[in-house]
Amino acid sequence: MKVKKINKASNAFAYPLLIKRLLHYSTMLTPENEIVYRDRVRLNYFEFNKRVRRLANVLKGFGIDGGETIAVMDYDSHRYLEAYFAIPCTGNVLHTINWRLSASQILYTINHAEDTVLLVHTDFFPILESSMGEMPTVKKIIALTDDGTIPATKLALAGEYETLLAQASEEYDFPDFDEDAIATTFYTTGTTGNPKGVFFSHRQIVLHSLGICATFGILDGACRVKSSDTYMPLTPFFHVHGWGFPFLSTAMGMKQVFVGKFEPEMVLKLFMIEKPTFSHCVPTILQMLVMHPAAQQLDLTKWKVIIGGSALPKALCRAALQRGIDIITGYGMSETCPILTTSFITPQEMKNDIDWQVEARTRAGTPALLVDLKIVNAEGKEVKKDDQEMGEITVRSPWLTQGYFNEPEKSEELWRSGYLHTGDVAVMNERNVVKIADRIKDVIKTGGEWVSSIDLENIIGQHPAIAEVAVVGVPDAKWGERPHAMVVVKQGQSLSNEELKSFLTQFVEQGKINKWFIPDTIDFVEAIPKTSVGKIDKKAIRGKLLLL
Amino acid sequence: MKVKKINKASNAFAYPLLIKRLLHYSTMLTPENEIVYRDRVRLNYFEFNKRVRRLANVLKGFGIDGGETIAVMDYDSHRYLEAYFAIPCTGNVLHTINWRLSASQILYTINHAEDTVLLVHTDFFPILESSMGEMPTVKKIIALTDDGTIPATKLALAGEYETLLAQASEEYDFPDFDEDAIATTFYTTGTTGNPKGVFFSHRQIVLHSLGICATFGILDGACRVKSSDTYMPLTPFFHVHGWGFPFLSTAMGMKQVFVGKFEPEMVLKLFMIEKPTFSHCVPTILQMLVMHPAAQQLDLTKWKVIIGGSALPKALCRAALQRGIDIITGYGMSETCPILTTSFITPQEMKNDIDWQVEARTRAGTPALLVDLKIVNAEGKEVKKDDQEMGEITVRSPWLTQGYFNEPEKSEELWRSGYLHTGDVAVMNERNVVKIADRIKDVIKTGGEWVSSIDLENIIGQHPAIAEVAVVGVPDAKWGERPHAMVVVKQGQSLSNEELKSFLTQFVEQGKINKWFIPDTIDFVEAIPKTSVGKIDKKAIRGKLLLL
Repeated sequence: MKVKKINKASNAFAYPLLIKRLLHYSTMLTPENEIVYRDRVRLNYFEFNKRVRRLANVLKGFGIDGGETIAVMDYDSHRYLEAYFAIPCTGNVLHTINWRLSASQILYTINHAEDTVLLVHTDFFPILESSMGEMPTVKKIIALTDDGTIPATKLALAGEYETLLAQASEEYDFPDFDEDAIATTFYTTGTTGNPKGVFFSHRQIVLHSLGICATFGILDGACRVKSSDTYMPLTPFFHVHGWGFPFLSTAMGMKQVFVGKFEPEMVLKLFMIEKPTFSHCVPTILQMLVMHPAAQQLDLTKWKVIIGGSALPKALCRAALQRGIDIITGYGMSETCPILTTSFITPQEMKNDIDWQVEARTRAGTPALLVDLKIVNAEGKEVKKDDQEMGEITVRSPWLTQGYFNEPEKSEELWRSGYLHTGDVAVMNERNVVKIADRIKDVIKTGGEWVSSIDLENIIGQHPAIAEVAVVGVPDAKWGERPHAMVVVKQGQSLSNEELKSFLTQFVEQGKINKWFIPDTIDFVEAIPKTSVGKIDKKAIRGKLLLL
Repeated sequence: MKVKKINKASNAFAYPLLIKRLLHYSTMLTPENEIVYRDRVRLNYFEFNKRVRRLANVLKGFGIDGGETIAVMDYDSHRYLEAYFAIPCTGNVLHTINWRLSASQILYTINHAEDTVLLVHTDFFPILESSMGEMPTVKKIIALTDDGTIPATKLALAGEYETLLAQASEEYDFPDFDEDAIATTFYTTGTTGNPKGVFFSHRQIVLHSLGICATFGILDGACRVKSSDTYMPLTPFFHVHGWGFPFLSTAMGMKQVFVGKFEPEMVLKLFMIEKPTFSHCVPTILQMLVMHPAAQQLDLTKWKVIIGGSALPKALCRAALQRGIDIITGYGMSETCPILTTSFITPQEMKNDIDWQVEARTRAGTPALLVDLKIVNAEGKEVKKDDQEMGEITVRSPWLTQGYFNEPEKSEELWRSGYLHTGDVAVMNERNVVKIADRIKDVIKTGGEWVSSIDLENIIGQHPAIAEVAVVGVPDAKWGERPHAMVVVKQGQSLSNEELKSFLTQFVEQGKINKWFIPDTIDFVEAIPKTSVGKIDKKAIRGKLLLL
């Protein structure tokens, strides 16, 4: 196949998609809008832009001329947002360090990413002090602090952030360069092995911002983010660059409010004073805020919230809707920049009853513009859009990581079919709405069918005598795999293998599950193995079974 | 300067920005929305997508494998929209023929673009018949008709559109290719010389759609286009691909209504039945519709209109606002895909009085996201944002034509400073709102100052005895240029040179104009030279003056 092509090298007209374009737009329409940090700092967009340029000059003053990786360890703040722009716009790579990792994991990521400059909040000094002498690439450390106080430290500091900014010029003409230049990197942790670095180019960040902005903006209905919103992120900036929203909120000149170190009291105070209308967070944070005694009198009817990170429980969704919160679910992952899908509820559908709303708003939702999402079965064939047939979510989009930094094999595996494999199993209905079923390593492949271990746990858990349940697949010569249940019976109650199977048979008779859902084997145990963060440890369960 | 780069060739993750991505999204959210053509055709997006693929197969059946230029001569229709997607998505170039040109100009563009296939409405057969034997590259002609009737013709036809579609498969897997592949071309006419071909790549069309969608979508206030709108274009599809809106309206799955051959009665009928909520047009069309006796009882309070093509007169803007129309101005040109700026009126500002609204909504507006717009003086230096200092609008953006097809010198001239030179003179206020003053060739450069000939005409035209006025610059040894006025006095009235100058002196005394605005010479004439479309012919005026 032939095409006639534009020769981009031939004249001045090439226009690389660079993050500086987003920054440029921030003073276009409502430059008087403010960026607020706790009860300490208020900047309008003109002031913010000058500070970004001052930071760029600080880096230049260090002799940095692009191509270096510069890391930030800070709470969500105006400083962090300044780094979001100053570091990539000078041709360097922004490394957003997850300060929730262990000190040794943080050290690993600093060395693996080859960071040369660290911008570190003084709260995190002890973590770095424990790794002194083990960070050979690090040349400079800048101290970040709210009040200018630097604690006694053995770290050799290049200076305090505000002092350095004050000494630098506010003029900086960000250059043009290749849009495929890497802009950001951060590390994602699995259950095993070292954290893996993902990375995104300027083109990818700009297209993610544009794609999400276009999809969110022009599709009306639930949770429509507008330039007149007040944005308050409640997921940390290090978490997939705040799900990409700081980039687009800045481009659109929205008022932004940053809570800094997460303290419910500060969040509630900012709620009352700054009146945020748009946030995103994991379910736990929403739960904490909505249930907080001090939040009971808050008017939340103007608050739009996107939930991601883990499934939104239906009860929490209902409670949020009853408080008047315009809540939807989004889906994505570190490898995907992150947004792939969000719930889209049309103005018409918003009039449906609360049961309908809960059902629709807890689903992962519909792909955004420019997200080419396929749910494929074990043979790589697209599943039927019948909300029944399960498959793995695979995607193409302009904003997916090319792979893992310096991990060619894992990168190859991630992209094995020419699509990025998310490892998430889902179904889709005829209106292209995705519902996550399970992680692929947990799904039970039996007789050519996929059974969601989570669905099965939900069904078994309906038996009144059961306190807790975990389901895993165990190898089976005939069926490939068969479900195995591990059950904790409530104190003072009893349950036999036969009783549970006959309970499940009712569901088969009602047509709610197929008969091959019924586990062949059931273990009655005292406790179910859990991970350090309290999730069911299916790997441990499978390991134990193989040992038996 | 160094940057770390992603190697896009290294794996599957490259994701070219292709027009097929926009088409793909059209069935994602509201596939039941309809594409309506007059009172004849209604298609939902599933049906539309199948027809696009049938057309792709018709082209494939002709042995076309990409890289060819395929032209359309049709009124706005579902067929035209099918061609908008089928032709570029098969790697070919869509040539949208301006059927308002003369037969010889149309022939010139067909030959210059090297069209191989023509899709032609039977109404335009006579134009082609007059050029038979003079189109060496054309291999196939497809007849477009509303009722299947083909008139007697000497043209050798490859078939009738609907018949060909009916015979073709509805399956077609549009391939990936380079995003810099040319997708569209069309011709722009100046006052002299042959029409010039501009061209746009897939990347450019996709980024224009995304950029406009993002800017329009997320910025709230006046004229916010939403997916729930009903789109009815009132500028022809051949005119800068309907200002790009058919691409984004299709991507967003909006209901679309096409009026076909422009007849006010049909437009009004469609208004009543299909209830469009969003259109774009030139001022004349709006004037015609708003003033039409049958339109007086129409409820236009849900109608959003973007005006472009020429300046929106304040009186028309006021009349439209009084009818409840949400009207704004946009600015762009054939070379710019086209959108560069539109008026943005915030929800707050929408409450201002009608005088404020008229003033704001008749300005060209603020640059869209990803439009880097500079107003520069004769030395190439950016003018002050004081709404006073004039300069030429120059732009960079990812969606500007690389140049004119096969016209390297004119292309070089267009991009002479590394920015695209629009030839429009404007001022900008401190809020980045552009106001067009004049065409650069008409602006009068006197003593280092720029004087807008249009501003001067507006001032002179305020004299009650004046029926019509034109102002041009004439060479002057001392000042470079000086204004010269040509005036037609109203019948039965009289006006002397001195009277007019003293009238203008009042404006100088009131501080409204500078004294060098007053023309040195005034011609009292019977009539002012006009072009064939009724515009003041300044070139003819200047020519005449040099002959004197």
